Amino acid sequence: MHGGNSVADRKFVYFFGNEDTDGKNSMKDLLGGKGANLAEMANLGIPVPPGFTITTEVCVLYLEKGAYPDGVLDQINDAIENLERVNGKKFGDIENPLLLSVRSGARVSMPGMMDTVLNLGLNDDTVEGLARKTGNERFAYDSYRRFLTMFGDVVLGIKHEEFESAIEAKKKQLCVNLDTQLNIDALKELVEEFKGIIRKNTGKDFPQVPREQLQMAIDAVFNSWNNQRAITYRKLNNIPRDWGTAVNVQSMVYGNMGETSGTGVAFTRDPATGKKVFFGEYLINAQGEDVVAGTRTPQSIETLKQTMPDAYAQLVEIYQKLENHFKDMQDIEFTIEEGKLYMLQTRNGKRTAAAALNIAVDMVNEGLIDKETALMRLRPEQIDQLLHPMIDPESEYKIVATGLPASPGAAVGKVVFTAEHAEEMAALNKKVILVRTETSPEDIGGMNAAQGILTVRGGMTSHAAVVARGMGKPCVAGCDALSIDIHEKVFTIGDFIIREGEYISIDGAKGCVIMGEVDLITPGVTGELETLLTWADEVRKMKVRSNADTPHDALVAREFGAEGIGLCRTEHMFFGDDRIPVVREMILAEDEDLRKKALNKLLPMQRGDFIGLFRVMEGYPVTIRLLDPPLHEFLPKHEELAAKLRDLEATVSQTGIGERGNLKRLMERVESLTEINPMLGHRGCRLGITYPDIYEMQVRAIVEAACELKLEGIDIVPEIMIPLICHVNELKSVKQHVVNIVEAVLKEKDVRMDYLVGTMIELPRAALTADQIAHEAEFFSFGTNDLTQTTFGFSRDDAGKFLPFYVSDSILENDPFAVLDQEGVGELVRIGIEKGRSTKPDLKIGICGEHGGEPSSVKFGYRIGLDYVSCSPFRVPIARLAAAQAVLEEKEE
Amino acid sequence: MHGGNSVADRKFVYFFGNEDTDGKNSMKDLLGGKGANLAEMANLGIPVPPGFTITTEVCVLYLEKGAYPDGVLDQINDAIENLERVNGKKFGDIENPLLLSVRSGARVSMPGMMDTVLNLGLNDDTVEGLARKTGNERFAYDSYRRFLTMFGDVVLGIKHEEFESAIEAKKKQLCVNLDTQLNIDALKELVEEFKGIIRKNTGKDFPQVPREQLQMAIDAVFNSWNNQRAITYRKLNNIPRDWGTAVNVQSMVYGNMGETSGTGVAFTRDPATGKKVFFGEYLINAQGEDVVAGTRTPQSIETLKQTMPDAYAQLVEIYQKLENHFKDMQDIEFTIEEGKLYMLQTRNGKRTAAAALNIAVDMVNEGLIDKETALMRLRPEQIDQLLHPMIDPESEYKIVATGLPASPGAAVGKVVFTAEHAEEMAALNKKVILVRTETSPEDIGGMNAAQGILTVRGGMTSHAAVVARGMGKPCVAGCDALSIDIHEKVFTIGDFIIREGEYISIDGAKGCVIMGEVDLITPGVTGELETLLTWADEVRKMKVRSNADTPHDALVAREFGAEGIGLCRTEHMFFGDDRIPVVREMILAEDEDLRKKALNKLLPMQRGDFIGLFRVMEGYPVTIRLLDPPLHEFLPKHEELAAKLRDLEATVSQTGIGERGNLKRLMERVESLTEINPMLGHRGCRLGITYPDIYEMQVRAIVEAACELKLEGIDIVPEIMIPLICHVNELKSVKQHVVNIVEAVLKEKDVRMDYLVGTMIELPRAALTADQIAHEAEFFSFGTNDLTQTTFGFSRDDAGKFLPFYVSDSILENDPFAVLDQEGVGELVRIGIEKGRSTKPDLKIGICGEHGGEPSSVKFGYRIGLDYVSCSPFRVPIARLAAAQAVLEEKEE
Repeated sequence: MHGGNSVADRKFVYFFGNEDTDGKNSMKDLLGGKGANLAEMANLGIPVPPGFTITTEVCVLYLEKGAYPDGVLDQINDAIENLERVNGKKFGDIENPLLLSVRSGARVSMPGMMDTVLNLGLNDDTVEGLARKTGNERFAYDSYRRFLTMFGDVVLGIKHEEFESAIEAKKKQLCVNLDTQLNIDALKELVEEFKGIIRKNTGKDFPQVPREQLQMAIDAVFNSWNNQRAITYRKLNNIPRDWGTAVNVQSMVYGNMGETSGTGVAFTRDPATGKKVFFGEYLINAQGEDVVAGTRTPQSIETLKQTMPDAYAQLVEIYQKLENHFKDMQDIEFTIEEGKLYMLQTRNGKRTAAAALNIAVDMVNEGLIDKETALMRLRPEQIDQLLHPMIDPESEYKIVATGLPASPGAAVGKVVFTAEHAEEMAALNKKVILVRTETSPEDIGGMNAAQGILTVRGGMTSHAAVVARGMGKPCVAGCDALSIDIHEKVFTIGDFIIREGEYISIDGAKGCVIMGEVDLITPGVTGELETLLTWADEVRKMKVRSNADTPHDALVAREFGAEGIGLCRTEHMFFGDDRIPVVREMILAEDEDLRKKALNKLLPMQRGDFIGLFRVMEGYPVTIRLLDPPLHEFLPKHEELAAKLRDLEATVSQTGIGERGNLKRLMERVESLTEINPMLGHRGCRLGITYPDIYEMQVRAIVEAACELKLEGIDIVPEIMIPLICHVNELKSVKQHVVNIVEAVLKEKDVRMDYLVGTMIELPRAALTADQIAHEAEFFSFGTNDLTQTTFGFSRDDAGKFLPFYVSDSILENDPFAVLDQEGVGELVRIGIEKGRSTKPDLKIGICGEHGGEPSSVKFGYRIGLDYVSCSPFRVPIARLAAAQAVLEEKEE
Repeated sequence: MHGGNSVADRKFVYFFGNEDTDGKNSMKDLLGGKGANLAEMANLGIPVPPGFTITTEVCVLYLEKGAYPDGVLDQINDAIENLERVNGKKFGDIENPLLLSVRSGARVSMPGMMDTVLNLGLNDDTVEGLARKTGNERFAYDSYRRFLTMFGDVVLGIKHEEFESAIEAKKKQLCVNLDTQLNIDALKELVEEFKGIIRKNTGKDFPQVPREQLQMAIDAVFNSWNNQRAITYRKLNNIPRDWGTAVNVQSMVYGNMGETSGTGVAFTRDPATGKKVFFGEYLINAQGEDVVAGTRTPQSIETLKQTMPDAYAQLVEIYQKLENHFKDMQDIEFTIEEGKLYMLQTRNGKRTAAAALNIAVDMVNEGLIDKETALMRLRPEQIDQLLHPMIDPESEYKIVATGLPASPGAAVGKVVFTAEHAEEMAALNKKVILVRTETSPEDIGGMNAAQGILTVRGGMTSHAAVVARGMGKPCVAGCDALSIDIHEKVFTIGDFIIREGEYISIDGAKGCVIMGEVDLITPGVTGELETLLTWADEVRKMKVRSNADTPHDALVAREFGAEGIGLCRTEHMFFGDDRIPVVREMILAEDEDLRKKALNKLLPMQRGDFIGLFRVMEGYPVTIRLLDPPLHEFLPKHEELAAKLRDLEATVSQTGIGERGNLKRLMERVESLTEINPMLGHRGCRLGITYPDIYEMQVRAIVEAACELKLEGIDIVPEIMIPLICHVNELKSVKQHVVNIVEAVLKEKDVRMDYLVGTMIELPRAALTADQIAHEAEFFSFGTNDLTQTTFGFSRDDAGKFLPFYVSDSILENDPFAVLDQEGVGELVRIGIEKGRSTKPDLKIGICGEHGGEPSSVKFGYRIGLDYVSCSPFRVPIARLAAAQAVLEEKEE
């Protein structure tokens, strides 16, 4: 024996009770959340029924060895003796029996763990003692039958229904409706029947010895740490197996001892709105389970002031003490036994996003917490809930199908099946939901015109999802259950048939599709949000920019606090009704002259786009990405053309022949541009290198726009970004070309201006050779969407076939298109930053993928040294808060 | 001044000549190849016309500063004095003038550098002295006009044609045909006219001062290092700019002094076959330029024995001395001046692959070199030339188009446009070339039946290219110039129209398409190749396996020396005529039972495949990859079905209706399986996870086959390989499933057997997290084809649109699908190996991409620690030699 630190010497059992409390709040790891809080309340002089906590360490050792470490059982026995002393009762005593509750309590509250067992210690003898002592035989037998049910169900694993049906049978037999109508004889009969059920199911008699009951209950709590539900929950929530659970054994108090007794739950502030009001409900003459069961309607906590003024006053004093002590809104449970108040639990209360925000800001104003603490009180993703319209929680509706929650917010509108139709309807001020198998860049106008988008195919980063989020438009994507018949203008979900023009509603935050119209409410950006985000801005070190393609998007982004544009996708500007014919003219041009002619038509349009953008973003950086998608995205689909061609071939008119020629030519170009894997195809800088005049036009438009504003006195530092670089030589070549054009335009306009030429890092090779690429780049922007596609080998357009399964089956923890994969994709980003800065220590580096607005990804980005993140406008506030939390979390470490 | 090492003290000029030679062979970097070899010959006592070399260092300094470093000119003057002394002549002397040649000479022979200037030192005075001294006025003036031409052309940059047309005019005027028929007066007139041409072009008189002539010639050599052609050549061949060139100034000797003079070139062995014979040709009474110009037909070297027996005997002695000295076949130039032999140059001779092989092996047998030296004498890729049929170099043919040299070898056959047609024709013993826009897995039968494959689209690793190389079948891919009209059964190349059934020929080593039939020759695997490869096997440390899908492939691989199968692609087994209907049945199955039924039909077929494979590979490891491609690859194409469906819809018969239903169902499945980026889609282990019963069938087939052979006494250790892993959890899940099935089958069969379960590393994420993956994997095999696709973001099916341009424009040095990109993809492989071995130090690691047979990639693989490479059967010998060279190159370092 080494002595001193051997297992036998360790403290396994912690007592709590007013004068004799071993634990405290900071011992959550050892005592579990519940045990630590009970001890803390006792320390604060708050009346809690005395009890003791068996540590999580015992759980781990017990599950490891299959037996209790030496000393545990002795310490439990000592604790029981102590309990007997402070209560003036004896465990198993026939005259004055001590009764106990047994509850599990891990570090964090965890579904799947063992339920509570109350009234432990009752048996055929002590029940009589209890009856005598309380003068309430009915109460004693009611308690006994409840204990038998809970012990049978929770400890012995007998189905609850077996006990329930015995009660139902008894009620039927006695022609009564409520449990409370069962008389003493009936309860006594039930007790016998319940013991029979236990015997039948376990092959053993119900254990009459209280110490044996207690041991079985403790064993059951520990064993429940490894039941399937708990394992699954732990896996899903990344809770380590070796945390273990504690067991809390506590003296019983009774709220069901008559009209001066009661039990209730309360929040120290309104958990829905965060308003500073005492909020809760209670039942007179009831036990905790009655409140939960909902068989009787509880009363509002305010009425307690009238019914039991002393207890109420004490409760108010205690809740304020608790909130002041824990410095957070508390969720409390209490019982009043014959006028005496006991606190059974306190914990930080769950709350809505709005409440979390308001409480955090209020508490700072009240001087209870500091700003930094307040910033940690709201999960950044909760901000999302605060900014989108949502279904009125009061309304009733029927969910007919579920898809992916692709873009938050709710929307109501008439079903349309084409983007054109959506635009027509919108022009008539009709609200529509655009329902498509999947969307493509040509649908952008229609998506913009619609209230919301619903697609059959596609994942969280499908075109529909990305564009919808960018627009702040609700979207449910990948709703497999839906089947569209475009010819009949109808879609079906199982037996439901919805026709064009009929109303549906969608909830993009939950992924629900609802028949008919629901009521919506729109929570605004409240003053508290602005306050909190201002505090976040004071703390954070990383800039937050927004992805925006139009002056309108840029304006929204500015309103949400964006400090620049991190990604302007110029191709989105190519899809306007006035643009697409010219773009096609350019693509179909048979020689350079014709192509230049078409590009010359596009030049003033693009210049106009950039002037608008620059004007809105005055004083802030604007990163413009040159054309990225493959050219075929701008042409009609092959099948569409083939159908038209077949139709035309059926006609014999002269005009038909001419048109056929044009169509055939178009078809040939479509075919020659068709790609098997367009994601890995002829796009990005590859286009810039093979068709240099497209980039030439774009660069000219950017610089001409900047010059025009410069002459107005508006200062702009355009950042020109080259997409899809995989080798430094590509960047070298394109950059040289870009610089030549910029310099030529500046000379023409006689303007001097700073500008940057940088690159997307969105292919693994670019990250791996970032040291070389940094020689040519003035900034890096990680395109984590594409980088995720190539690093995983996942096409985001196709991954819907297996990715949901991967996530639900825990092969992947998260959808990597939603949450940056830190081990793989993140590792490449880290390598890219490290290598890039090894060449240029001051290289400006950001990310502009969808991850730029996802909190854990934003925090990761801060840790690995990003200068900024860029995300869709509606995610800017999320990123601002996440960036602040990243700094605070780093501090904590 | 620091003294000692200042520029002024350095030696810039190295003299050579029998007794007074400063340089030697090992000083190539300083003296250039030619200068070092001239010095070395002088050192060996071989008669070379004395001269001196101005170092490469002078070139670099001169080009840097635009002026000569101090001391250079003095050293040149000293060297001229020395030359005058040993020759007994004086530079510029009227009575006995010393004449010089000036030649460039870099470390390696380099096209684009300055041509030779002969007879330098002649002017209006010395020409008379030369005439008197030689008693040959015609010779003197002929030399003078030649010098003027060369000086004008090479040093002054005047177009050669200007001088040529003056000569032509003169000949016309005199009514003669040959230069030799011009009389002395005509030559004198030409000299005047040439001086006029020089004056007209340069605005200056021809420089009469010999020292000035020499300086201008030296300047011109140095400046030619930076002319455009030289820059381009250096860029293409990775020759650093700072190597510079040397200048060789040498006393003139004359082969045109009459019947006892002559000049010639020779190889010490036959450069075409490598046979040990003295091989060359010469001209009597001629200068070197006459041999090259081809105006007179040279005589075979053997006749020199008769015409000048002494010179011949001396030449034989010298060539043998040179070969013995340099220990390699030499390419020599010589001049005989009035019976006296001078050697002008010696260098290692260029040779064919066959000659390289035979010379290397012969020289080992002769004791001239050791085996290790012999192994470095053949470039591994040259072996390719030795193993494929080729176009008879004697035949005449017309190349009508050029595509990518996708799979080496030549083939002749009748044009067919479909795989089925190819198979029909092959069944009739007709030779065909399969011409397709691109091939797909369904074409495999037809590709196998054809002599060669020609495709319009696709790169070096397109389906056609990969499969063709795997089959050892000639293939020209990505031949853009070709346009197929499948309905008319005709293809066009510009104005050429080729119909089905007409003959074409292709050369897959050069990428040529030829009209009609050409003669082919098939060089066999000679004994020398076997010998050399056996030596390679003794040296190399890395194993060489082969990719093989059938017993036939495996047999070929064994014959080429493969030490196992590194990749058996089981999907290729699914495309047989008897298989595909069952595979489709499996894919279309509407429930699990129907799918199982179809899989049960496939099981015995797959088992049979594996039995065949295992039997051939007895004693060697066989790695079998479970199903990899997406399921839609096994279904008909969407457009094909749509066309059929339209045809059927035009009919109204009852049978039509039933068939239409089936087709519609098939169409629905095709549509539901369609992917936008199939490369990044639902394939590999993603299929194994979502359709576990497919892998179950395959694993069962593998183990049942192994058990059957085991019972026959044949020992097999199957290596089961899971494709497309990106996360360790995928492998964990599939591996568990695989192990369960293996164990179940072994139990059923009551067999004990070792087996391995490993994974492909073919996605960046897998390489980046290889430490985690190694916990579950018993071996790694890097799939560098797919890894290249995702690391670069290049679809190999689509990259043909820009990749050729990238390579020709030097954005990329090589096609990364042909030559492993060591900086990007290779870096991932290196990371993967390092991380994998950090978890399991003994992890067996190989690669099985196309790069496994590419020499530089094989060598890289050795350097980063691969245990083996696996490549197509025909590349196994290449890999064996490359692996040996890798060891020898490492030793050298």
